[in-house]
Amino acid sequence: MAADATPQLHPDVAVLAPLLGTWAGAGTGEYPTIDDFAYVESITFTHVGKPFVAYTQRTRHPDTSAPMHAETGYLRVPRPGSIEIVMAQPTGLAEIYEGAVVGGDAPLVIDVRSTSISAATSAKEVTVTERTISVTGDVLQYTFRMAAVGQPLQHHLSATLRRA
Amino acid sequence: MAADATPQLHPDVAVLAPLLGTWAGAGTGEYPTIDDFAYVESITFTHVGKPFVAYTQRTRHPDTSAPMHAETGYLRVPRPGSIEIVMAQPTGLAEIYEGAVVGGDAPLVIDVRSTSISAATSAKEVTVTERTISVTGDVLQYTFRMAAVGQPLQHHLSATLRRA
Repeated sequence: MAADATPQLHPDVAVLAPLLGTWAGAGTGEYPTIDDFAYVESITFTHVGKPFVAYTQRTRHPDTSAPMHAETGYLRVPRPGSIEIVMAQPTGLAEIYEGAVVGGDAPLVIDVRSTSISAATSAKEVTVTERTISVTGDVLQYTFRMAAVGQPLQHHLSATLRRA
Repeated sequence: MAADATPQLHPDVAVLAPLLGTWAGAGTGEYPTIDDFAYVESITFTHVGKPFVAYTQRTRHPDTSAPMHAETGYLRVPRPGSIEIVMAQPTGLAEIYEGAVVGGDAPLVIDVRSTSISAATSAKEVTVTERTISVTGDVLQYTFRMAAVGQPLQHHLSATLRRA
């Protein structure tokens, strides 16, 4: 096999096939400790034929295009219906999420909650995060809920992207 | 600023400038629980003008080009001489490393040890990891030491790459 040939998607992560590719769209964020904000976003999901899907994401300011957030990680399906996501954040956080994935003939829905959030010494405190990601046709939507800096778990981000 | 313009490197991570770009080379691995192995590797360090450097890596089998390992994360310099690395592994691990960085007029040397290794339910147990990364001119070298699956901390990987 040539190094750049596109391999078959590993059967363990076949349920994640609707994620694969590049997505572009926009989102909004809110949290009690900061002003509401908007962003444009690009997300890419790729695979190399092994039993994981790689994830990378960037957001930019909608007016200035200045970079805002980024994150990167991997999705695994240890057994049918279950999903694990491992994520690195440039804010100094490393997260593990676990939860449920449904798909197949139905729209893909991933619903996960943090089982571990580790922080580098200089990072802000984040205690719980939850994510819901859905793909219906060429539309990807997600919501992100967070308990951080002393605030209870609550809505922080939501975005809608289209297949680019 | 256009979205794709190359921004200035953030001064907080100026010491990491020698890492930026793409590297290609080869490495070898060993551990008491597995056969010795060799790999070819590509590493990319990028930035967007914010106070972190993004890292992504892939290894392939030297004969078949089959994908082997991958990992991705971010490097931060919270204060001069200190470095934090946040890493996601497709094996289901999320790691935080902290340690020392020296550079400037001297070759760049990063020496870090894990302060946190979090595992998804399906991941193997890894308890301590250490990395030393150096850049001298157009040569990047690293070593990786690991305590895992009941074994004491010991050498696991070393590789030499050249600026691609």
